[in-house]
Amino acid sequence: MNSELQATTDAGRKFVGLAEEHGADFATRADQHDREASFPHENIKAMQESGFLAGPVPEQFGGMGVASVLDMMIGMSRLGRGCASTAIATQMHMAGAWETSRIWRGRENAPPELAAAVENVMRGIAGKQVIGCAGFTEAGTDLSAPMTEATKVDDGYAINGRKIFGTMSPAANIIFTAVRIRNGEGNLRSIAIVPLGAPGVTIHNNWDAMGMRASASHDITFEDVRVPDVSVLGGLPWGKVDANFAEMNASVNLGLISTFLGMAEAARDYAVEMTKRRKGPSGKLLAERIPIQQLIGEIEIELAAARAIVERTGRVADEYFQRNPFGTTPPDEAFEQLKQNQCMKWTVQRNAINIVDKAMTATGGSAYLAGNPLSRLYRDVRAGPFMQPFAPYEALEFIGKVTLGLDPQLDR
Amino acid sequence: MNSELQATTDAGRKFVGLAEEHGADFATRADQHDREASFPHENIKAMQESGFLAGPVPEQFGGMGVASVLDMMIGMSRLGRGCASTAIATQMHMAGAWETSRIWRGRENAPPELAAAVENVMRGIAGKQVIGCAGFTEAGTDLSAPMTEATKVDDGYAINGRKIFGTMSPAANIIFTAVRIRNGEGNLRSIAIVPLGAPGVTIHNNWDAMGMRASASHDITFEDVRVPDVSVLGGLPWGKVDANFAEMNASVNLGLISTFLGMAEAARDYAVEMTKRRKGPSGKLLAERIPIQQLIGEIEIELAAARAIVERTGRVADEYFQRNPFGTTPPDEAFEQLKQNQCMKWTVQRNAINIVDKAMTATGGSAYLAGNPLSRLYRDVRAGPFMQPFAPYEALEFIGKVTLGLDPQLDR
Amino acid sequence: MNSELQATTDAGRKFVGLAEEHGADFATRADQHDREASFPHENIKAMQESGFLAGPVPEQFGGMGVASVLDMMIGMSRLGRGCASTAIATQMHMAGAWETSRIWRGRENAPPELAAAVENVMRGIAGKQVIGCAGFTEAGTDLSAPMTEATKVDDGYAINGRKIFGTMSPAANIIFTAVRIRNGEGNLRSIAIVPLGAPGVTIHNNWDAMGMRASASHDITFEDVRVPDVSVLGGLPWGKVDANFAEMNASVNLGLISTFLGMAEAARDYAVEMTKRRKGPSGKLLAERIPIQQLIGEIEIELAAARAIVERTGRVADEYFQRNPFGTTPPDEAFEQLKQNQCMKWTVQRNAINIVDKAMTATGGSAYLAGNPLSRLYRDVRAGPFMQPFAPYEALEFIGKVTLGLDPQLDR
Amino acid sequence: MNSELQATTDAGRKFVGLAEEHGADFATRADQHDREASFPHENIKAMQESGFLAGPVPEQFGGMGVASVLDMMIGMSRLGRGCASTAIATQMHMAGAWETSRIWRGRENAPPELAAAVENVMRGIAGKQVIGCAGFTEAGTDLSAPMTEATKVDDGYAINGRKIFGTMSPAANIIFTAVRIRNGEGNLRSIAIVPLGAPGVTIHNNWDAMGMRASASHDITFEDVRVPDVSVLGGLPWGKVDANFAEMNASVNLGLISTFLGMAEAARDYAVEMTKRRKGPSGKLLAERIPIQQLIGEIEIELAAARAIVERTGRVADEYFQRNPFGTTPPDEAFEQLKQNQCMKWTVQRNAINIVDKAMTATGGSAYLAGNPLSRLYRDVRAGPFMQPFAPYEALEFIGKVTLGLDPQLDR
Repeated sequence: MNSELQATTDAGRKFVGLAEEHGADFATRADQHDREASFPHENIKAMQESGFLAGPVPEQFGGMGVASVLDMMIGMSRLGRGCASTAIATQMHMAGAWETSRIWRGRENAPPELAAAVENVMRGIAGKQVIGCAGFTEAGTDLSAPMTEATKVDDGYAINGRKIFGTMSPAANIIFTAVRIRNGEGNLRSIAIVPLGAPGVTIHNNWDAMGMRASASHDITFEDVRVPDVSVLGGLPWGKVDANFAEMNASVNLGLISTFLGMAEAARDYAVEMTKRRKGPSGKLLAERIPIQQLIGEIEIELAAARAIVERTGRVADEYFQRNPFGTTPPDEAFEQLKQNQCMKWTVQRNAINIVDKAMTATGGSAYLAGNPLSRLYRDVRAGPFMQPFAPYEALEFIGKVTLGLDPQLDR
Repeated sequence: MNSELQATTDAGRKFVGLAEEHGADFATRADQHDREASFPHENIKAMQESGFLAGPVPEQFGGMGVASVLDMMIGMSRLGRGCASTAIATQMHMAGAWETSRIWRGRENAPPELAAAVENVMRGIAGKQVIGCAGFTEAGTDLSAPMTEATKVDDGYAINGRKIFGTMSPAANIIFTAVRIRNGEGNLRSIAIVPLGAPGVTIHNNWDAMGMRASASHDITFEDVRVPDVSVLGGLPWGKVDANFAEMNASVNLGLISTFLGMAEAARDYAVEMTKRRKGPSGKLLAERIPIQQLIGEIEIELAAARAIVERTGRVADEYFQRNPFGTTPPDEAFEQLKQNQCMKWTVQRNAINIVDKAMTATGGSAYLAGNPLSRLYRDVRAGPFMQPFAPYEALEFIGKVTLGLDPQLDR
Repeated sequence: MNSELQATTDAGRKFVGLAEEHGADFATRADQHDREASFPHENIKAMQESGFLAGPVPEQFGGMGVASVLDMMIGMSRLGRGCASTAIATQMHMAGAWETSRIWRGRENAPPELAAAVENVMRGIAGKQVIGCAGFTEAGTDLSAPMTEATKVDDGYAINGRKIFGTMSPAANIIFTAVRIRNGEGNLRSIAIVPLGAPGVTIHNNWDAMGMRASASHDITFEDVRVPDVSVLGGLPWGKVDANFAEMNASVNLGLISTFLGMAEAARDYAVEMTKRRKGPSGKLLAERIPIQQLIGEIEIELAAARAIVERTGRVADEYFQRNPFGTTPPDEAFEQLKQNQCMKWTVQRNAINIVDKAMTATGGSAYLAGNPLSRLYRDVRAGPFMQPFAPYEALEFIGKVTLGLDPQLDR
Repeated sequence: MNSELQATTDAGRKFVGLAEEHGADFATRADQHDREASFPHENIKAMQESGFLAGPVPEQFGGMGVASVLDMMIGMSRLGRGCASTAIATQMHMAGAWETSRIWRGRENAPPELAAAVENVMRGIAGKQVIGCAGFTEAGTDLSAPMTEATKVDDGYAINGRKIFGTMSPAANIIFTAVRIRNGEGNLRSIAIVPLGAPGVTIHNNWDAMGMRASASHDITFEDVRVPDVSVLGGLPWGKVDANFAEMNASVNLGLISTFLGMAEAARDYAVEMTKRRKGPSGKLLAERIPIQQLIGEIEIELAAARAIVERTGRVADEYFQRNPFGTTPPDEAFEQLKQNQCMKWTVQRNAINIVDKAMTATGGSAYLAGNPLSRLYRDVRAGPFMQPFAPYEALEFIGKVTLGLDPQLDR
């Protein structure tokens, strides 16, 4: 595949190479985990062993030192080719690894205890002791307005609430989770780092969905879970799409959205391979029929656009992160970056859905059978538009508001 | 639902009313049968008991006497609202009931033994003793070129071959199946009526697909299955899209495609209901948000077009069938009718896919969960474009060729 | 063209036949009028002479007695095949002819002076003395909220204001125009019938647009124009999408939207003809190339959907008008009918745009030249989505609101 | 506009800056030239004066030294924002300037007389004496199969034939034109450089199209036009899509396609500006309405994808040109590059059409008037899909064939 994306740094090339190896391995078990809705613990283990999970961690702490977010995105797309569930689960961890590294690189703008905390996390990741996951989504609200409460108690905070889509949780030992802090002046939104083994944390093992069946996106509840002050990071306006909201989501989503590029590439590869092999009633190969060639042409065009927007968004993000160290981003830039990310999200996830659909049409009825990789991808890839932020219609409203110079609060 | 399609005859209204009742009942078990991939025997039984399965059979033989194909289509769309798998399985029987009734109505153009045979089938259906299914599709070929062989033996034919997509077979006792007869002057294509209990017939119970999981679309093999001469109906050119091919497929598909209208209607109803009930973080109903209203608007437009083309195609088909009794159809008219059907197939099945997709977007992430009716419909509805004739790209070529006045053989 | 729409009544068949003849004649001059932006006075004259302009007028007054709105729509679509500008201009008159006939048929629900007034108009039309046009649109507002004022004066009303899109005005002698009446209790919206020759009326001859160049859609101003009381018809709530607004727009738009079906049919016919004649570098006809066949297939599918929704909407409208004589329509039914019309508007106008676009692609670069009918149609057909009510995004909101059972006032 | 494309070299930044200045100036006259179908001689003159026309010419010959094709593409997109006709006309020259510079950079692979000839052309361009145009398209054939004949005569060649779409010809003094050379072993395809002032050359001043009206894309005929041997460059297989065909078209089209990005950006800017200024009946700005925000959001997404694929294709092309000096390109790489260009062509030109369409919808009915920039862009932008290579359906076939590893000759 000549036109696939290429990493831009040495560390990135190594990371992408590992992603390809892992992806090829995971592909062999993707069908089974999908059928059983079983979590691929062995995949996570393999990525921990190879050092892949420590990709963004600086080399001095024992990581691979991938500092380019574009390179991380390309790596995640390669993983997405193999097993979509594993890829999105892995990104739940990778986002934390990336974000802690970013905080550490901009530590002069952070309180010393935060710098120490993230260093700790990074060392844990590189030392193969820490795996993270993320708990942001809740039913009946959106990412800016968590209803899980962090209540100040003597020696820290007590956390109570219920999260959904707790992807990766069975393999993780810490969770980054969004909480609401109520105080005299109103509500604040914050992120808490909670050990998954802490008393009061329950993973409900109840993920049962149309696709992404191996992602273990279980409900997680917190009942009077105690964490120290240092584990509750900052306080931001609750219920607002502000710069911090924009920046945090930008960094989490870059890798997540990129996994859908990999799913599209896997569907395309399968379609190309099968149409070169399969014959019609006259003995003619599918690949020799002009309408099939045109379908492959349509797939390639949508793929070329998806790759291009991943690459451009990643490079723009790399410049953005370098220009704006942690804690210094002007709101306008954060909104512009989230807008660019949302343009990428729309394009990549919608094109990926179309590509899988066309690959099914090109290869014929067998694509509908349960064991066929396209039928799994068809279910997996539809998860994309549900991922926050934003739902497709919200994305249009957000992008439009930013473009028109308006306050980007959604009418919701 | 004011704008839903309405039957045009008294018999039709009774048939559609029964379909609604059955559909509402089947809806309560659709999720379970989907999860278990179990065949809804009780649904088939209920339709046999109510007389619904004898819908097209003339009243003098004990049927409901639905002679309008449009009314049959509307009934099948109502069934499709309840359980898609049951609906397509039922249509496998209904097509036979319809086609035998049509042959009987035009019996002056048919050999007496054929008239007798179809009368027999109709009496069996009305007497709740006969249920039919259809075996047309085979791997690696298309409907015009069956590779299952019917070989002349002393007292009839010996049938050997393998069919796929043997939908409804567990409940049926006869199968209408396409066979190739090789003779001195070349190959012929014919339809054989085979008792499913005959020695040598095996239903493989191997249907395992992404959707339509309760449809029992198993492989069926015939090993030296013996049938009498009268069970092999006529001989037509093998491998050709000719008038008979066009006419037969037209009548089979009219009801089948209509079931997808019902699936779209079910998705639309669910979306309307949920958005009127579900609230966002601010307490606003989803239905009160303009972008949601617009999504519902898009759904309604695609639904209005789907309904209109079902209605027009059905009425045109009714006129066509009246103008051309069995055995008298000029090739040009048969191709024009199949072209109109293919325009309907494209529009209805593609719009249904879009409608389910938009219903998911409108109602939010819960639509992705396994127990949600939309996640089942999303998988079920994608079966449409695989149904022959034709694949989407073949449909475009066929429609184009007929429109341009060319021989409609596909380049395949 | 086998699958074209067919009139349902004898009067309708005569009307549609005339429309075909007129259309074929107008087609010969469409290019010239487009280039010169000249109004086709000779076309209007010919339709007056043939009696076509009196199509909906009851036979007892000398008209053709077309009482089926579906038949009128089919006739207007035939006219649209020949010259789009003439067709939309003619509909400005035809809507008035239709609406006055409807009022007259329901005259027991109307004040006697209104019944007398509309009888007068109908006699004038049938007597080849009266041609009407419509003045509803104004800049900076929408159809429900006219800013042209009708002020009560001693012996009637004084009218002041500016209308845009005064299509057909050069040939008309009366205009049906929307006005605001301010009174003590708030604003009312009304329709005034104004002679175009009255002192104070100016047609500005300033229509200069991308397409529909021969439609004479000039600005019209009213400066202290005096009309008697009987010429100002009723008072309805200003600025509201209410049942009367819905009903009136429904009847006006049915024929207008249908003209776009004719434009699509003309583009399709041209593409079919040219691809059967034109050769590529190898000497192969365009029609013999599979991708061209597929493009024709796509065109046919979009056309089939457009025809079906015109037919269904027209038949539903005929039933609606019969069920609800003038002045008796329940609001819910009026909204439902306008919703159905908007579904038709969206489908027909968008499909027509797509069909012309694909016809251009199929026939090649010559379609881009000024003298080519497709290049004219490409410009003409884009007028559709601008026509009120509603803009496309407003249509989605309106349809959604009606479907969800909400008050259909737009957020504007 | 934060997310617009940025040049990557110093020379490129200067070139892009000039393009912006010229574009802003040209925008002020674009409407007038469109109405009059007059050629913007003053625009060409201004670009010659500023040195812009010598953009790709190496500095040592007096040019700007823009060696990055991406930077040239970005510059052409900026020009496209101002006046589409001027931009595509300019590219007819720019392609020659670029291609001669590329030949010169790879002159060790070229015959010495070719190197001398192209140096001559470049010096002429930098010296403000030479302006080029291109004559490739002919009616009834495609770019690979010119029917204009170059016949060997004693002292060179005699050229006879007719070209269409001779864009830019009124301002040019040389034309690069494709010819067929018939010899004993079959036909060859070649490019001839012909002075437009030579005896026998006629520019027919007959361009009269729907859009691009100021581009002077006249027919050009050659009647026994004599040129020396050195003006006929090489001989390649006639009628074949081979590597040279692929490479030449790649370099010509990169800048041409990029002008459509500029048209899209102009439409987007206009829509953003107008919706921030224009009010509806309630006094609310269009920009404050959520459906308008969503339309702007859709525009931004399509624009982001178009920009990304221009940027990626340009960068990939720069690497390709550096890796493969003139005359050394392996066929596979040439096909891959043309495939990537065709993916860009499809995406950019289709998105540009959609963006203009949505900008019209967002701003309302005034966009349909002749003086509105959107109505001009709507006509201009539709030229894109007609530009060879390839027509949209041919592009799909070509891309599919290359992807599937087949010989990319089209079935035509």
